Amino acid sequence: MSHIRSRFNKPPSEAMIGYTLSLPFDHRLYRYDIDGSIAHAKMLAKQNIIPLEDAEAICRGLEDVAAEIENRKFTFRTELEDIHMAIEARLFEIIGEVAGRLHTARSRNDQVALDLRLFVKDAVAETIAGISKLQLSLVDLAEGNKDVIMPGYTHLQPAQPVLFAHHLLAYFEMFQRDAERLNDVLKRADVMPLGSGSLTGVAYNIDREFVASELGFSQVSRNSMDAVSDRDFVIEYLAAASVCMMHLSRLAEEIILWASAEFGFIELDDAYTTGSSLMPQKKNPDAAELCRGKTGRIYGHMMAMLTTMKGLPLSYNRDLQEDKEGLFDAVDTLLSSLCVFYGMIGSLKVNKKNMERAAMRGYMLATDIADYLVARGETFRSAHGITAKLTRYATDKDKPLDQLSLDEYRKFSSLFDDDIFKVTAASSIAARNVTGGTSPQQVAKAIARAREIVGKTE
Amino acid sequence: MSHIRSRFNKPPSEAMIGYTLSLPFDHRLYRYDIDGSIAHAKMLAKQNIIPLEDAEAICRGLEDVAAEIENRKFTFRTELEDIHMAIEARLFEIIGEVAGRLHTARSRNDQVALDLRLFVKDAVAETIAGISKLQLSLVDLAEGNKDVIMPGYTHLQPAQPVLFAHHLLAYFEMFQRDAERLNDVLKRADVMPLGSGSLTGVAYNIDREFVASELGFSQVSRNSMDAVSDRDFVIEYLAAASVCMMHLSRLAEEIILWASAEFGFIELDDAYTTGSSLMPQKKNPDAAELCRGKTGRIYGHMMAMLTTMKGLPLSYNRDLQEDKEGLFDAVDTLLSSLCVFYGMIGSLKVNKKNMERAAMRGYMLATDIADYLVARGETFRSAHGITAKLTRYATDKDKPLDQLSLDEYRKFSSLFDDDIFKVTAASSIAARNVTGGTSPQQVAKAIARAREIVGKTE
Amino acid sequence: MSHIRSRFNKPPSEAMIGYTLSLPFDHRLYRYDIDGSIAHAKMLAKQNIIPLEDAEAICRGLEDVAAEIENRKFTFRTELEDIHMAIEARLFEIIGEVAGRLHTARSRNDQVALDLRLFVKDAVAETIAGISKLQLSLVDLAEGNKDVIMPGYTHLQPAQPVLFAHHLLAYFEMFQRDAERLNDVLKRADVMPLGSGSLTGVAYNIDREFVASELGFSQVSRNSMDAVSDRDFVIEYLAAASVCMMHLSRLAEEIILWASAEFGFIELDDAYTTGSSLMPQKKNPDAAELCRGKTGRIYGHMMAMLTTMKGLPLSYNRDLQEDKEGLFDAVDTLLSSLCVFYGMIGSLKVNKKNMERAAMRGYMLATDIADYLVARGETFRSAHGITAKLTRYATDKDKPLDQLSLDEYRKFSSLFDDDIFKVTAASSIAARNVTGGTSPQQVAKAIARAREIVGKTE
Amino acid sequence: MSHIRSRFNKPPSEAMIGYTLSLPFDHRLYRYDIDGSIAHAKMLAKQNIIPLEDAEAICRGLEDVAAEIENRKFTFRTELEDIHMAIEARLFEIIGEVAGRLHTARSRNDQVALDLRLFVKDAVAETIAGISKLQLSLVDLAEGNKDVIMPGYTHLQPAQPVLFAHHLLAYFEMFQRDAERLNDVLKRADVMPLGSGSLTGVAYNIDREFVASELGFSQVSRNSMDAVSDRDFVIEYLAAASVCMMHLSRLAEEIILWASAEFGFIELDDAYTTGSSLMPQKKNPDAAELCRGKTGRIYGHMMAMLTTMKGLPLSYNRDLQEDKEGLFDAVDTLLSSLCVFYGMIGSLKVNKKNMERAAMRGYMLATDIADYLVARGETFRSAHGITAKLTRYATDKDKPLDQLSLDEYRKFSSLFDDDIFKVTAASSIAARNVTGGTSPQQVAKAIARAREIVGKTE
Repeated sequence: MSHIRSRFNKPPSEAMIGYTLSLPFDHRLYRYDIDGSIAHAKMLAKQNIIPLEDAEAICRGLEDVAAEIENRKFTFRTELEDIHMAIEARLFEIIGEVAGRLHTARSRNDQVALDLRLFVKDAVAETIAGISKLQLSLVDLAEGNKDVIMPGYTHLQPAQPVLFAHHLLAYFEMFQRDAERLNDVLKRADVMPLGSGSLTGVAYNIDREFVASELGFSQVSRNSMDAVSDRDFVIEYLAAASVCMMHLSRLAEEIILWASAEFGFIELDDAYTTGSSLMPQKKNPDAAELCRGKTGRIYGHMMAMLTTMKGLPLSYNRDLQEDKEGLFDAVDTLLSSLCVFYGMIGSLKVNKKNMERAAMRGYMLATDIADYLVARGETFRSAHGITAKLTRYATDKDKPLDQLSLDEYRKFSSLFDDDIFKVTAASSIAARNVTGGTSPQQVAKAIARAREIVGKTE
Repeated sequence: MSHIRSRFNKPPSEAMIGYTLSLPFDHRLYRYDIDGSIAHAKMLAKQNIIPLEDAEAICRGLEDVAAEIENRKFTFRTELEDIHMAIEARLFEIIGEVAGRLHTARSRNDQVALDLRLFVKDAVAETIAGISKLQLSLVDLAEGNKDVIMPGYTHLQPAQPVLFAHHLLAYFEMFQRDAERLNDVLKRADVMPLGSGSLTGVAYNIDREFVASELGFSQVSRNSMDAVSDRDFVIEYLAAASVCMMHLSRLAEEIILWASAEFGFIELDDAYTTGSSLMPQKKNPDAAELCRGKTGRIYGHMMAMLTTMKGLPLSYNRDLQEDKEGLFDAVDTLLSSLCVFYGMIGSLKVNKKNMERAAMRGYMLATDIADYLVARGETFRSAHGITAKLTRYATDKDKPLDQLSLDEYRKFSSLFDDDIFKVTAASSIAARNVTGGTSPQQVAKAIARAREIVGKTE
Repeated sequence: MSHIRSRFNKPPSEAMIGYTLSLPFDHRLYRYDIDGSIAHAKMLAKQNIIPLEDAEAICRGLEDVAAEIENRKFTFRTELEDIHMAIEARLFEIIGEVAGRLHTARSRNDQVALDLRLFVKDAVAETIAGISKLQLSLVDLAEGNKDVIMPGYTHLQPAQPVLFAHHLLAYFEMFQRDAERLNDVLKRADVMPLGSGSLTGVAYNIDREFVASELGFSQVSRNSMDAVSDRDFVIEYLAAASVCMMHLSRLAEEIILWASAEFGFIELDDAYTTGSSLMPQKKNPDAAELCRGKTGRIYGHMMAMLTTMKGLPLSYNRDLQEDKEGLFDAVDTLLSSLCVFYGMIGSLKVNKKNMERAAMRGYMLATDIADYLVARGETFRSAHGITAKLTRYATDKDKPLDQLSLDEYRKFSSLFDDDIFKVTAASSIAARNVTGGTSPQQVAKAIARAREIVGKTE
Repeated sequence: MSHIRSRFNKPPSEAMIGYTLSLPFDHRLYRYDIDGSIAHAKMLAKQNIIPLEDAEAICRGLEDVAAEIENRKFTFRTELEDIHMAIEARLFEIIGEVAGRLHTARSRNDQVALDLRLFVKDAVAETIAGISKLQLSLVDLAEGNKDVIMPGYTHLQPAQPVLFAHHLLAYFEMFQRDAERLNDVLKRADVMPLGSGSLTGVAYNIDREFVASELGFSQVSRNSMDAVSDRDFVIEYLAAASVCMMHLSRLAEEIILWASAEFGFIELDDAYTTGSSLMPQKKNPDAAELCRGKTGRIYGHMMAMLTTMKGLPLSYNRDLQEDKEGLFDAVDTLLSSLCVFYGMIGSLKVNKKNMERAAMRGYMLATDIADYLVARGETFRSAHGITAKLTRYATDKDKPLDQLSLDEYRKFSSLFDDDIFKVTAASSIAARNVTGGTSPQQVAKAIARAREIVGKTE
């Protein structure tokens, strides 16, 4: 016997009720719905479409409903199906028949589009704020460890020494693009759809710009049929969230690697790990793992919305009700991921010694030795060939490069001199003194610029 | 001011608690968890790993917990993080320290794998049952309208006449494949993982086959590291659900088209539509639209799980916690979609007249006229050429083919005779008397076979 | 015996060669690679990093290579693996050892990032140009049929009459957002990565701004590790392309519906259909169907790139080689879809009569009748109730609303007067005279505005 | 000026030709098309639908066409659009008008369905064979290193010692499931669709079972409308390929980790890496990285096909032409990935010393110490508490557990005795002697079982 409740025990028409119901998730739009209705009522009065006193009664009634919801005194009756009906029904109870005037020159189709746009505008703002916090924690960590050298990897193989701060700032750049992308999403979310009616516009002398201005929109929609069936702004948010989550997944992967016994570069604060009482040194990087795992969830929500919209004829179709749950979950997931990473980055300890020991390993200075020869007149290609032979020789002898004698160096080129021993991880890093390079000077500039950018956001 | 609750108002370590919490969704695994623990405790006693009376106390205690949950007397304390801890903690309260023996030779990693496998096994069974119900409603509708002729479409253009029943049975075949696919999913879900420990197996003389048999599994897992990190069975369910939902989306699209004013082939029961009080004839096919829209959701959940699993090293990683929410929602969505379609198909009215009028239109019998000539000795290619000229002539004259005179027919081939007027939609359909064809005889066979298949499932 | 060539007949190391090879697809980046190398060589000379005459020899040599490729005299040797090696090897053959100086202060990692950014910048420009063409064809079709009335649909049920031009302009708005979105993609693609070296920046006194300016970039990248591992701009293009393709899929769906026998609203030009010689009236809307089908392909490419990037540690990893094939195919698919739709829209015939007949059907003026009563003082809610009863009455009598007598109207409200018969599809449309509404006046404005927008793009 | 060729330079109707063309990719179906036609022609003769000598001429002609294609003497003329037309046109050239009889009782719709099913059947067989090869290389590597101990990880943190062979065999299990899954795909691909005509079946006395038997199908399709519009088998292959590729991505991730300087567990053969001439020790694991990256591509192709099929009405729609390119690429990518991994696994060197050193680290024996106490009578929970205190004590003293004195052990429990020092990584592994556990005995059994399974496949 299955423990999953069978849908077929009741008449399917009852299953249908649950199938169409949106109140269990769209109730969180209540404040947007009420704000939108208040702006609409004010406009109707201003345009003499409804009497001023009716509009005032409606606005007061709506604020009463809002208060009830906020104080948890509101009963969400599922037979009312969605948050719009639930609020309207309660408004009738509170102010009586005059509530019937609110729906003048408006339809459910433009109303839900409005509410969702208000939500996305807030979501964008909150996400940018969260990104900014995380960026700040990265900058703080970078500045607090600005002299720490670590191996720079390509193919997860040590390639060249790099400042840990420089590595962290790579993520600053990624998140900065995310913030800019979200600002672009905003441009297309920031369009006021009310006045589009069911699909053709309304037959009243309304003032759409007034409503837009009341609600903080910078423009009104330009085609009523598009306005009631457009969910591009939802997909755009989800696409931007997907890229941001992808960036978090990359940082998560690195944190998991750095916190491993084999790397040993960082130690995470207990708050962001689960331990094993049996193995006190085992600190599982759960926050990073969960975030990496939740990347799939955001990608999935975007793919869901794109699939839902594929091939839909105009104008409004009930398929569009699927625009909310995935979006809400994506916003919640991304905001909490940003917050958790902010805390995790802000509290982790850097094992400077381990990082620097790793940065000394191998032949990571080979590029610098080739550059040394180029600086002394060798062509790049030939300098490259000489260095290759030299490192091959050192590998065969199983010696690090800095343990070779000058005589050994000179076997490969007479251009080598005493100062070859000044080629070190530190000198290698210092030499990358170009915009975007890892030299301490450039990294200091980058930190300053980063602080300025984050400062503007806050 | 945003209406979205900012995560950054509290210390991020508090956000972390909510981030890792699974109790809000994994509580629905409670019965599987308890069943698994009971089987485990029995085995421990049987193998003399724990005393029999302790095992009996544990089993009684677990049934008490189950009863508390079923009677809604159980307090889900979120500080206990997941359903396994919640149940274990309550067991300690009820039976005292002896509860501590339950966890012998078991770890959280094999325990959660077990619970999820039990859930998927149930989900597969319920889904197959739901599919079978829907298949039955399709067969009933087909049989109840077994003489109704409609246009068969390619490219959404009328191509050849076809029995409505034959069209419906195409969906029977799709859903039959879905059921078979789910049976295949079952094979790989039906593997008992307990005994894998955290990752290496356990150091006790356990009897895994006994546990498997107690819980109704047909085999035990073969590698402990695989067993704790395998979620293939989740992806497989989601893939099968995606294809089934895709089939539903195709049926949904057709129902929407058939219910449109332009097609007018069917009328949906009020329970599956929303009406407009202003426009009484407007019955919006909401159930079909929602189902079509929800297709994206299922696809998204599958993509999410595949993304989560990509590139994960062995063995257990916390990323795997993401295996539940999407799965649960997919199961719920698919089961309710099947149930709603079952009701919708079972209650719709067929507008026989409109279907048949549409089936008379155009030149849908051209193929049959070519076949007529082939039967009288013409080669296929030449018969095809003659018919093309004939239909072109009829089009130019703006006459349907059955309004041409025999003389006109004979202008194109002397093989035409009086019996050409016996070529009708009905004769066309009757002629497709091959396995899988639309002839009444074949369709009757197909209905009988379908009933037999569904009968076996029930 | 399988007809699929087995990979296992040869040593797997040979399979490996094909596995890593990118020349078969990255050859199309040749011009970007050469442009980038020329700018780099010029900069090296300007900065006295290499001699001027060497730089000049390099630039001339590169132009020779370009000419060979354009004139199909270039041999793509697959042992050279990628287009960068293929060009460099040929440069050595043409100008000798001096070619070895070109790679100074550059690595493969920043070079491939540069080439791909140049490609995406071009792709964005071409896509916007293609969108603009399609928009123009929509505006032309709208203007050429500006008086044509059709049913406006919600839930694919006729809801209110609407101008065909208004319906078309909804797509203009969608494509306008696509163009704006692509402009935003450009901002983040328009960043010059050269100078980032393998991952840490280069140890030469280079002038990155000069290179940026030579190649038409507006800024240089800010972090070398980010610059060599960032593919956000690829994902962003794919996301914008996915939304644009989704819009095309919606238009495709409508064209398929409109061209069906049941709707009969349009006739497609033969160039965009396949016919059946047997059924001359059957014109299959292949272009629209293929485009609808190809939507999946673009979505898939985006999901592929997001998956590839998930969880990658810094900096360059070979996984990134997967950034090209999907992108190239997406660009080609979108550009050809836009072009085909441009031609299809520009050549289709409108069946005005069928559209208008459909617009008369049913009770699509019910909303206007309610508005009529509101205008005469009835509250909205009560006007709505009266109209509902009226339409129910008409339905029961099986009469269209305009066939009711004034007496019959008056049974439901004494506010009805002779002028109720002036409520027509045309009056309904005219009344929607708000920004974004379907009134002829608004549509004329919208057409004018659309022409202005498209004019600016061209 | 863009380097991307503009589609808008030519009339869009020319772009349309390229848009619909499938010959550039479907040419690889040629052998399946010819095999299918030969079987069809034989059946037509057997049933006296066409003369025997005509069928013989057709079969000979088709083999001539096949020979021309195999010998690269066949001209693929793109104006013929697809491989079916290309072959048919050439057949007419070779054998004349009698070629016209081949199309009797067949349509393009059932013909393309047949060809694709034949391809998928081959693809399944090849994929299973490739999986089997890779499994064999895993078993060989496991057996060749059957005594090597390594850390077993959870959360990428060392958790318990494990045999390297056991870890490898976890992948054997994953790939075994992949093979079984593909066998299930085969069941639904192995259905013969010919005889379904365009959509309704054919009006000839054909023998479908004969055709099925000739072509090696085990059953015939049961509904003609379903048969011409079903692409489930394509999606099923893509879903199975996605899971298999996900498994490969996990193995790839581990290979990349193991080959890193920090882990140092394995050394890859040069054939599967790219080196740096400058840094001879740097061996980039390109094969593993590329495979991990290509995972996205397979996921994308599956998502594409699911998207394409969503919401398509019956029966054949041109959207279905999108069924091939993604499938072909998925088959090629998966087969070459399997082959490359087969070679890579077969040639890698194991650094036994590094693995074992890592396995000694930390407190990985804590679980065994708790088990030691349980075996001496302590309850599990209390044994767990004692061990936790003990390891905490050792951590504070910064001593490994095996460096504590017996006196120190006894501070925590008097149950400890001299034999506590017999608890080692080896004893820990030996103790996991349950089915699926890591004990040498179980691993030897697992290897034997694996060889038997692979033996059966070959």
